[in-house]
Amino acid sequence: MQQPSERHRRGWEMLKTIDGEAGEHVVAALQDIAPDLGRYIIEFGFGDVYSRGVLTLKERELATVAALAALGNAQPQLKVHLHGALNVGCSREELVEVLIQMAVYAGFPAALNGIFALRAALAERTAATPAG
Amino acid sequence: MQQPSERHRRGWEMLKTIDGEAGEHVVAALQDIAPDLGRYIIEFGFGDVYSRGVLTLKERELATVAALAALGNAQPQLKVHLHGALNVGCSREELVEVLIQMAVYAGFPAALNGIFALRAALAERTAATPAG
Amino acid sequence: MQQPSERHRRGWEMLKTIDGEAGEHVVAALQDIAPDLGRYIIEFGFGDVYSRGVLTLKERELATVAALAALGNAQPQLKVHLHGALNVGCSREELVEVLIQMAVYAGFPAALNGIFALRAALAERTAATPAG
Amino acid sequence: MQQPSERHRRGWEMLKTIDGEAGEHVVAALQDIAPDLGRYIIEFGFGDVYSRGVLTLKERELATVAALAALGNAQPQLKVHLHGALNVGCSREELVEVLIQMAVYAGFPAALNGIFALRAALAERTAATPAG
Amino acid sequence: MQQPSERHRRGWEMLKTIDGEAGEHVVAALQDIAPDLGRYIIEFGFGDVYSRGVLTLKERELATVAALAALGNAQPQLKVHLHGALNVGCSREELVEVLIQMAVYAGFPAALNGIFALRAALAERTAATPAG
Amino acid sequence: MQQPSERHRRGWEMLKTIDGEAGEHVVAALQDIAPDLGRYIIEFGFGDVYSRGVLTLKERELATVAALAALGNAQPQLKVHLHGALNVGCSREELVEVLIQMAVYAGFPAALNGIFALRAALAERTAATPAG
Repeated sequence: MQQPSERHRRGWEMLKTIDGEAGEHVVAALQDIAPDLGRYIIEFGFGDVYSRGVLTLKERELATVAALAALGNAQPQLKVHLHGALNVGCSREELVEVLIQMAVYAGFPAALNGIFALRAALAERTAATPAG
Repeated sequence: MQQPSERHRRGWEMLKTIDGEAGEHVVAALQDIAPDLGRYIIEFGFGDVYSRGVLTLKERELATVAALAALGNAQPQLKVHLHGALNVGCSREELVEVLIQMAVYAGFPAALNGIFALRAALAERTAATPAG
Repeated sequence: MQQPSERHRRGWEMLKTIDGEAGEHVVAALQDIAPDLGRYIIEFGFGDVYSRGVLTLKERELATVAALAALGNAQPQLKVHLHGALNVGCSREELVEVLIQMAVYAGFPAALNGIFALRAALAERTAATPAG
Repeated sequence: MQQPSERHRRGWEMLKTIDGEAGEHVVAALQDIAPDLGRYIIEFGFGDVYSRGVLTLKERELATVAALAALGNAQPQLKVHLHGALNVGCSREELVEVLIQMAVYAGFPAALNGIFALRAALAERTAATPAG
Repeated sequence: MQQPSERHRRGWEMLKTIDGEAGEHVVAALQDIAPDLGRYIIEFGFGDVYSRGVLTLKERELATVAALAALGNAQPQLKVHLHGALNVGCSREELVEVLIQMAVYAGFPAALNGIFALRAALAERTAATPAG
Repeated sequence: MQQPSERHRRGWEMLKTIDGEAGEHVVAALQDIAPDLGRYIIEFGFGDVYSRGVLTLKERELATVAALAALGNAQPQLKVHLHGALNVGCSREELVEVLIQMAVYAGFPAALNGIFALRAALAERTAATPAG
């Protein structure tokens, strides 16, 4: 419908870099019900905000994982961003640390649910990797 | 009462490194009403968690600022940690970025209130700096 | 036990108008464990508050859907009220709009989870409708 | 307008027992803008819920203080209920404990802000007590 | 720096229609610290989302007021949007209703703090109106 | 690795007293991903906080259940603590009461989800009890 703008192209590349197939699936799942919400995620979320620089993508994902674990109302998005964080270079150990830190600021349940989401995300990656 | 343990000493040094006088004031303000809460902040928050390594202190503060801005129920602590983030090497520009990113995950009011807290923290630091 | 009061009768009619069978199921599910909570929902929630007028039922449901999507801690109730909103005349398109608006005030995860709850509610209604 | 019902009378007595003048002020402050909200607080909050028995008023106030401190979005109501808890027999030490416990479940900022609200409430009571 | 786009122009007009001077002040207050956040509010919040149609502006403001009162972490933005709601045709009585409804879904403290914010907003408007 | 300290031993006994096998499972589930988070739960949560006295364990669990139901972002932990509350002497009726009270402070969805978690916890205990 709309010509892909520069924001759209930049956002789509950024979304693929960070979230990979999981991000594409979220956008695809919106097509029949709220395609503009998918467009805003691409254009505003990734085309505007994630593309700003100053912070590295790794730092942005650490901050996102911290916020989603603290809020605790967005488990599906937390899992997508734990994958995103691993995709842009965060190690498993670094993600454990940022989630443990949430025990201090948002309480142990937030930290625990974050750790269990990380364990599930790591298991998915192992399952998806063909044995050598 | 209790002999300062190794956790306590390590936590106290860490608290002073990160939060400086603002952190000492929080602990002092608890002495007459809930001194053990101050002790837990030092021993658990700073002696156990902030001292774990793996993440840099700068990364820990970016995550903390993200979480406190997203939660939105802890404005005094957000301001303490914006100072803490500046103390351990985060730039004003990096803090603006992490707060703008919260607009995506926690909504524009969370981002706005975070930015206004940052502006207040920066003004305090300017006011506290004697002119050369 | 208690004689149904005028509040109770009014609330029960209102609950059936808005939430239909889904509302009746919630009240029934409380009978063996906390029947008074079901009674308060009928008498206070529907008999007192929903019956107040000034706003149309459609406006009340738009506000309820907005709040539940923003809070994000009440997915089962959000789905009940998406059905309720459709029952009292909100269109699918209007519900998409109110949920997209939540991206601005509560963040994209809140909007996304709301949209996916709407998609599930719409699918349930399609499944429940016999083909002509 | 409405004849005070039994629920209303029971709720009003309960509100005065628990919250004293602070509770009466909240209801009075609603008279010009939303008097029915004050009525619902009296009739539903105090006439229905607080009057149910099974738990002591002290246990109800400990639970209320815990919830309000954890939620963190209701500082004025937290202070009213810290007074209420002291009015129905909770000690200062017990309130410190329930607030410290919130550090575990809702994070240290929630606990800290609760403790500082308690300190403010205790100071108000001292100020209001004429010296012997 | 950037040429005002069509989104920007549309958003700026919409922001002025809804929030009037209060909205302009928020954007102005961001100029020295995070001007892009102001730009995103204009372009995404008002240029994209508020301009979508389907819902009336009045319905959008009722939903926004509901969400901000329920979340409870955004009192300054709640007051801006109570003014916005009055600006686009919501009556004082309708706003009282949507806030009372929040007692059911987010608890009485959320409703109470919303009502007191409304009272403050109404007082500001009275103060700003020259006597005839 | 670390010698179990007195805090650790005290915390482990307390965790077993309150949460029984469910608590041990949570700690065990953390062993391969974040064992230190399990250690902090034992040492800080149970060794420091739950062991403080002043409040009875029953009062601590009532407060915990209230907070977790109000926050609404920690359903797995809510269920663990409903079992914990029953383990330390809270009756089913008392837990119903504390959850109904949350309708007043956190809204009916929080109360409803708490009651349904209680129903699930009670069903698990019935299933686990061999018929005489």
